[in-house]
Amino acid sequence: MLISEKEIEVRYAETDQMGVVYHANYLVWLELGRTKLIEDLGFRYADMEKEGIISPVLDINISYKYPVRYGEKAYVKTWIDYYDGLRSTYGYEIYNDKDQLVVEAKSQHVCVKKDSFRPVSVRKYFPEWHEAYERAKNKEKLEDDN
Amino acid sequence: MLISEKEIEVRYAETDQMGVVYHANYLVWLELGRTKLIEDLGFRYADMEKEGIISPVLDINISYKYPVRYGEKAYVKTWIDYYDGLRSTYGYEIYNDKDQLVVEAKSQHVCVKKDSFRPVSVRKYFPEWHEAYERAKNKEKLEDDN
Amino acid sequence: MLISEKEIEVRYAETDQMGVVYHANYLVWLELGRTKLIEDLGFRYADMEKEGIISPVLDINISYKYPVRYGEKAYVKTWIDYYDGLRSTYGYEIYNDKDQLVVEAKSQHVCVKKDSFRPVSVRKYFPEWHEAYERAKNKEKLEDDN
Amino acid sequence: MLISEKEIEVRYAETDQMGVVYHANYLVWLELGRTKLIEDLGFRYADMEKEGIISPVLDINISYKYPVRYGEKAYVKTWIDYYDGLRSTYGYEIYNDKDQLVVEAKSQHVCVKKDSFRPVSVRKYFPEWHEAYERAKNKEKLEDDN
Repeated sequence: MLISEKEIEVRYAETDQMGVVYHANYLVWLELGRTKLIEDLGFRYADMEKEGIISPVLDINISYKYPVRYGEKAYVKTWIDYYDGLRSTYGYEIYNDKDQLVVEAKSQHVCVKKDSFRPVSVRKYFPEWHEAYERAKNKEKLEDDN
Repeated sequence: MLISEKEIEVRYAETDQMGVVYHANYLVWLELGRTKLIEDLGFRYADMEKEGIISPVLDINISYKYPVRYGEKAYVKTWIDYYDGLRSTYGYEIYNDKDQLVVEAKSQHVCVKKDSFRPVSVRKYFPEWHEAYERAKNKEKLEDDN
Repeated sequence: MLISEKEIEVRYAETDQMGVVYHANYLVWLELGRTKLIEDLGFRYADMEKEGIISPVLDINISYKYPVRYGEKAYVKTWIDYYDGLRSTYGYEIYNDKDQLVVEAKSQHVCVKKDSFRPVSVRKYFPEWHEAYERAKNKEKLEDDN
Repeated sequence: MLISEKEIEVRYAETDQMGVVYHANYLVWLELGRTKLIEDLGFRYADMEKEGIISPVLDINISYKYPVRYGEKAYVKTWIDYYDGLRSTYGYEIYNDKDQLVVEAKSQHVCVKKDSFRPVSVRKYFPEWHEAYERAKNKEKLEDDN
């Protein structure tokens, strides 16, 4: 299964007065995980936006298992949980440097035109991305079958 | 049903290059909604922390229906969706100034000691909060029964 | 002298593990101060951007006198320190709810076209803004003369 | 002269609707630059805080020369501009991946006790840090003399 891994250095700015990373900041880390996955597939999200297409978040489910602190490192594991040519769901697990699972999450995305926010088909607009996403998805299925 | 309402003035800093509010920033707005609900019940979250108790987030589910833009206002409606003396789940709806539902969310919280992150009973540590939460919850139930 | 005042409710998200507001977040408050000043002059910055003109920051000088904490309120006082039809310098003082001066700052801005980042003359593009800024500036000078 | 260099990958979350990095976020990058400098000297800022000492910012001067965009990389160069055993001033230059100077800044810091915010002498509390800072400073002076 294609699982990308992104190392995160906790920033002081990301902490709050609980002395741990502020919960909303993990959503930024999830984004860094997605960016890395897309890079591992050979693409750059910035290039998609240059074509006038953006990929907003439809929904996010996130569970916080364990706090992460300044001075630690974190590792975001990201994979394609679902993809149908239009919508993508990414799965995530974040680990701390003691290899403890600290966050689990899923996020659903769609591609839309930047000027109108109207949905577009990835299959049609970005056929090479589509193929890469299909491959990453099937690869996962094959492994699940074994 | 007790539903608190918090008006939000969109900050420029909250936008991203999509030209809309960055998705993680809505979690900050949810927090402002919770803070307002607690105030409407006659308490201040800052006072709880002065007692060495903090209330971290266990999980969040959030759906993005419609983008919000700089120059607009937003309104966070917050209520107690579930409360059992230990865990609280808050429900949220965010509306824009055209009264469109832009975000729906739920977040689950527990109270813990700041130094150890060990869970504590709200019922035991903050009996007045407990009663207020029970009342807000029952009030809702009564209305549901009618 | 025209001095706008903007009340700020400290957000939990704005704190860091020092237990005080994270220093970069005051720059966001300065922006809220500018926005309020522009509103007090009868305009909206969002309207300027709708014309394809943006007003980036050229430089900021900021001094931190006293920490601000969650649960407190802050008040941003903002005025036009300098304006010549092209560049604007804003002055700021932030006070806490005990009326202590907590931050002093100045920021310099210019207006540019959003697509090219080429400077434009406020006098030419927004003559009504220009007149309002001149009046606010002269008003200050007159008072200084007395 | 000891100049540390920290590579920054621009985060989508750091952009605003101007389509460039939001100006306050560069202060976070400066902090990453300081952290790197301290690491290059053989220390960790997180360890200082474990001793109950924090190092808040007294003031910052920052000039924005050129916008940085998502998809680009940035490089923060950081050095000790001044140090007297009590106060430290750091100097910074940020470059984009075309080697253009995009930001220049200085920030002044002091060390204080976390519980009281009373200043403490680095020389006294952290003699090894003090020596390393003196060496880095003198190294710079020697080079200036030549």
